[in-house]
Amino acid sequence: MKVNEMKASEIQDMSKAYNLHSWSVQGPLKPKVMAKAEGVCFWDGDGKKYFDMSSQLVNLNIGHGNQKVIEAIKDQAEKLAFASPAFALDVRSLLAKRIIDMAPSNMGKVFFTLGGADANENAIKIARLFTGRNKIMSRYRSYHGATYGAANLTGEPRKYACEPGIPGFVKFFDPYVYRAPIDFETEEAATAYYIGQLREQIIYEGRNSVAAIFMESITGSNGVIIPPKGYMKGVRDLCDEFGIMMVCDEVMTGWGRTGKCFGVNNFDVEPDIITFAKGITCGYVPLGGTIVSKAIAKHFDDHFLSCGLTYSAHPIGCAAGLATLDVYEEGKLFDNANAMGAILGDLLETLKSKHACVGDVRYIGLFSAVELVKDKATKEALVPYDGDPDKLMPKINGMLSERGFSTYTHENCIIVAPPLIINEAELKEAMAIMDDVLTIVDETML
Amino acid sequence: MKVNEMKASEIQDMSKAYNLHSWSVQGPLKPKVMAKAEGVCFWDGDGKKYFDMSSQLVNLNIGHGNQKVIEAIKDQAEKLAFASPAFALDVRSLLAKRIIDMAPSNMGKVFFTLGGADANENAIKIARLFTGRNKIMSRYRSYHGATYGAANLTGEPRKYACEPGIPGFVKFFDPYVYRAPIDFETEEAATAYYIGQLREQIIYEGRNSVAAIFMESITGSNGVIIPPKGYMKGVRDLCDEFGIMMVCDEVMTGWGRTGKCFGVNNFDVEPDIITFAKGITCGYVPLGGTIVSKAIAKHFDDHFLSCGLTYSAHPIGCAAGLATLDVYEEGKLFDNANAMGAILGDLLETLKSKHACVGDVRYIGLFSAVELVKDKATKEALVPYDGDPDKLMPKINGMLSERGFSTYTHENCIIVAPPLIINEAELKEAMAIMDDVLTIVDETML
Repeated sequence: MKVNEMKASEIQDMSKAYNLHSWSVQGPLKPKVMAKAEGVCFWDGDGKKYFDMSSQLVNLNIGHGNQKVIEAIKDQAEKLAFASPAFALDVRSLLAKRIIDMAPSNMGKVFFTLGGADANENAIKIARLFTGRNKIMSRYRSYHGATYGAANLTGEPRKYACEPGIPGFVKFFDPYVYRAPIDFETEEAATAYYIGQLREQIIYEGRNSVAAIFMESITGSNGVIIPPKGYMKGVRDLCDEFGIMMVCDEVMTGWGRTGKCFGVNNFDVEPDIITFAKGITCGYVPLGGTIVSKAIAKHFDDHFLSCGLTYSAHPIGCAAGLATLDVYEEGKLFDNANAMGAILGDLLETLKSKHACVGDVRYIGLFSAVELVKDKATKEALVPYDGDPDKLMPKINGMLSERGFSTYTHENCIIVAPPLIINEAELKEAMAIMDDVLTIVDETML
Repeated sequence: MKVNEMKASEIQDMSKAYNLHSWSVQGPLKPKVMAKAEGVCFWDGDGKKYFDMSSQLVNLNIGHGNQKVIEAIKDQAEKLAFASPAFALDVRSLLAKRIIDMAPSNMGKVFFTLGGADANENAIKIARLFTGRNKIMSRYRSYHGATYGAANLTGEPRKYACEPGIPGFVKFFDPYVYRAPIDFETEEAATAYYIGQLREQIIYEGRNSVAAIFMESITGSNGVIIPPKGYMKGVRDLCDEFGIMMVCDEVMTGWGRTGKCFGVNNFDVEPDIITFAKGITCGYVPLGGTIVSKAIAKHFDDHFLSCGLTYSAHPIGCAAGLATLDVYEEGKLFDNANAMGAILGDLLETLKSKHACVGDVRYIGLFSAVELVKDKATKEALVPYDGDPDKLMPKINGMLSERGFSTYTHENCIIVAPPLIINEAELKEAMAIMDDVLTIVDETML
């Protein structure tokens, strides 16, 4: 059988027979065929159309089928598809420079990887090599990737398969104000509490022991948790006090997702290391990277950088990255994320007022989550943590999908993060589907 | 500045200023510009031509600029550049089926990754999930990748940056007959010794404790160590005796490098898991994967597969993979690896006879290493393990490069692994350069 000659059912059957699928029990899977995709939509093997309301895995910021990026891929494939990372290439040099130009002013150099997991893996190594310290702190409601280092950073259940863990990885609590143990009067009070707790934990772990604190600048899959006012500055101050590297995982939040280039730009703070992937090429070609401060970069002028991978700074990935940055700029897509984000915020607040099942909505730019509860007053989650015995969340996701709203759910949250190119009409049409489904949830699941 | 408008010196300067380069102290680097590449050769920024005698990082089996693979990349970029791993796609299904058709007959399904490191990371998780055991055994002279899990598999110094290590990773000695503690009369005697030692170590570690034994089927960068007759069968028997998963890392040795599809095919043994990368796309687009046996695949029909990455089974990677397999088949490249490998073997034996500095040559297909010594009789290595105070190996590599022979060295070995498309005239022209350089080594470094 050949490409272009297969029926959707054959593609699906062969996929079931020969492909292992991520994060699943394989038996019950019926992998949907994606037959066509364009802009904010894709079509399945039956010709049914879907709004891509999670930008696939929060990576497709420019949407499907962008011709400028496709042309860049084609040109680079013709010119030079591969060269070992030791070689200097125009696209490698230019993309690194351009990223540093867009990054916070203290940033110096880029180590390119293939995705977010290996970007974080290398950030761990770099922080340890630079500081000479061992301990790595990160948060419980976090996902940083599925390779051993990245999974040991991760706080949520996807880390369990990589345990017993790597020595020296320590977790702390997230500033998850909606489910805090205290009813804070102000954001500043929440910040004072969380930073105080973190400071105490650092001291207990050893004030000279911690190499790095890793954070998604805004927690992604684990509920779009936006830190309260002053929190990121508080972490920065702790890092300065104790000589700790502040590492922002911008894999989901980078490249305009939150309306700014990086999520951390919302908080007026400069971290020491930034990791990125997804939006740099939007997944058209795999690419990720680790950006380090000028101070760290200088350290490795006369110290060995013990990092490497065959496909570091892949030429076609770098070419796609340069074109993607052009698309952001020419289409003013970060601005559109802010404009559409404001509309999305209003729509989400309306859903929260209207539906008994919506406990909280959290949003910034075009990055948002709808947190479902059994009871608004008690905040009891619709499904317990790391457990969903009645498969309610897959049912809800299925209802959304049936009606043409494609996204994913995680724990008791629905992620809403459409491509940054979405317009008002598309956004409203899609969110009306969510409104209908939440009505069914109100009526049948509480 | 723009692509195509930059001078070589500008590319190099910008690379020094903004890119972090793999496995290096950054300060002294002068990254060579690759300006053009075709077939078995590439050209630098000054127009100087090089034979690519390591196929870049032993990945470019089909050579540079293969038009069939380039067209496949361009077509898939136009058709569908990205879809989340949950979707079934023609190229994903077809490539998985085709790999299973080429793999040993016990193999069932493929989990696609981006490279060799994450292929090994997922193999560790799969072996642990399937067996319910924790310990992972691998060899001292091995390289399996630089992320934490893969680096903890790795036995050579590149693992040090990922220590303190992950609990449960245990190392054993390689069947490195050239430097064995005993002068074996036959290969069978060597095998009996190494398998006996391994069996004893498994029992000491706990006969029900070991989840997997990982091996490069032929050790790659650490010296192209070819196991003695019966060794792989011996490991297979131990794995069967103790319920251990036998995992062959075929990242370098896969896809014709040794003259057969996988390195392990040379030994008439079926492992439980195979990891691959490099030659599946030759690096034109990043792709790797973990092939599991039918028994393991079946296990995950009703058990959760705790593996995943955003770019698993990337559409353009899969399309490039399908085209690469076509190129191997249509060009009969595995046969050419055998034919040219026989000539290379003769040339290497001649070098060994002729040069005082050549202690051993090891070769299979187009995969080979030249091991340099100070003294043939004592076998004292030209440079000590994990140390080369006088930088002799970089000097030798530099002399090769100056004369148009591009490769890399590792410890006291020079790797020779040209693209599988090389012809006799090219091979002889390139190896004559090595002959000249080894004469200089004989005369100046012993």
